[in-house]
Amino acid sequence: MKYPDKVYLNGEIVNPEDAKISVFDRGFIFGDGIYEVMVQIDGKFFYEEAHLNRLQEGLSKINITFNANELSPAIEQLLSATELTGKDCLLYIQITRGVAPRQHSYPDDIKPTVMMYAVPKILPDINKVNAKVISRNDFRWSRCDIKMTSLLGNVMLNEEAMQHECFETILYRDGCITEASHCNVFFVKDGIVFTHPANELILDGITRQIIFELCESLQIEIRETPISINDFDGIDEAFLTGTSTQIAAIQKINNHILYTDDKIGVVTQTLQEAFLKLKKEN
Amino acid sequence: MKYPDKVYLNGEIVNPEDAKISVFDRGFIFGDGIYEVMVQIDGKFFYEEAHLNRLQEGLSKINITFNANELSPAIEQLLSATELTGKDCLLYIQITRGVAPRQHSYPDDIKPTVMMYAVPKILPDINKVNAKVISRNDFRWSRCDIKMTSLLGNVMLNEEAMQHECFETILYRDGCITEASHCNVFFVKDGIVFTHPANELILDGITRQIIFELCESLQIEIRETPISINDFDGIDEAFLTGTSTQIAAIQKINNHILYTDDKIGVVTQTLQEAFLKLKKEN
Repeated sequence: MKYPDKVYLNGEIVNPEDAKISVFDRGFIFGDGIYEVMVQIDGKFFYEEAHLNRLQEGLSKINITFNANELSPAIEQLLSATELTGKDCLLYIQITRGVAPRQHSYPDDIKPTVMMYAVPKILPDINKVNAKVISRNDFRWSRCDIKMTSLLGNVMLNEEAMQHECFETILYRDGCITEASHCNVFFVKDGIVFTHPANELILDGITRQIIFELCESLQIEIRETPISINDFDGIDEAFLTGTSTQIAAIQKINNHILYTDDKIGVVTQTLQEAFLKLKKEN
Repeated sequence: MKYPDKVYLNGEIVNPEDAKISVFDRGFIFGDGIYEVMVQIDGKFFYEEAHLNRLQEGLSKINITFNANELSPAIEQLLSATELTGKDCLLYIQITRGVAPRQHSYPDDIKPTVMMYAVPKILPDINKVNAKVISRNDFRWSRCDIKMTSLLGNVMLNEEAMQHECFETILYRDGCITEASHCNVFFVKDGIVFTHPANELILDGITRQIIFELCESLQIEIRETPISINDFDGIDEAFLTGTSTQIAAIQKINNHILYTDDKIGVVTQTLQEAFLKLKKEN
């Protein structure tokens, strides 16, 4: 991983070594912030409106007053400074409640901290990874619908995947698979796609939402029914989704092998191709 | 709330307005850090060893390599710079994993960020608050034994108390009271003290541990048995504990009144007096 060339911080474009915030920023003291990640593909942010809407919703959920629509000129300014205007890149946006002496409750008259950066990112047409994943108990909070920066749980769970030389950690709560440490997860059984309902236990990913659109247009049945952690025997295919991950086929869950010899399942492959078509049309 | 006069940051003493960290600090990006709060009373940090041990344990639990014993000279340096040597004050310590380009898993060769500050704090001999509290569903993660800076859940729950002009929010999970947004909570029933077991669902507060010591020496029976959220009718007394809170009697939980006219229960009062004695002897 590399640092970006430039950082947008509260209205200014600065070098990464100069991108500094107060230690009293509630993002640092409390993880009191919301973030968003989106990718520019062929000169256009993919599902930009959906990402900015989700950012706005997240801010509302934790009562940070900020208008996400105001970001557009700043994003342009940042891309220009980073020489990424029109180029394939990943944009990271983080908005925290702002700077105040430490107290748990929300301070009055506080100005949000806005930090953004962009790095070059050329996503493959189709993600060819054959993901090995492990499963772990989902010990995170039960407001995973909020895309917040208090991410230590996700970090610890992701680290476990790395320790096991795996791509991701899929999570289960009360025996049901929810999502993964930074992806959503889907299963295919008898041609039907299953995923956890978009309630407070998962983040309703933008790519997750696209899977629903694609299934509808491809007439693939999709159900918001969670899969049991003890029910892998009936599973034909599984895949992860995310903004950078796009659609990644899962080859192996713990010791349970879903396919060998890179033989990605037919539903996963169909969705990957439809997703590529969508990107090209966008 | 006020800013401290000085901040210790990675070996240097700086003014609060100069206490700045990189936006790539994992404390800012992921809430990937551990914190500790302790108070100096009559020239000595109260239960310093217990606090530093807990800090060390927290760091170990999330695999941050740092020796908390190395903090002692830095704490002295900070107190001296803040003109608080030997004076009653509150010390805040935060250690994050350090600075790296954003990736969930733990980066190699990363140097922890160490931030500390002290502010004058004269605790009352006995906390005379008659706390009104509300109760809310404990939607935080299930590793509350880790005193981490990913605190958005605690922040949101504390804010609810403030909105209701209450002192604290006590939390319940699966119908059982766990702790409060930044305190532990105890109940008294027929002369017996009850509190949630010190498992992964609560932080085992230093003052909580002292309550066990005091109960033993006072021959008050204490049980690590959680109280049901629906079981307030049989409760005679309730109190909160914490480093700054010390022991605070709970007067009212939601609409359930425990006492009126500041008539703090006998067990709570006995413990408050014994706690005062302990402070004086320490």
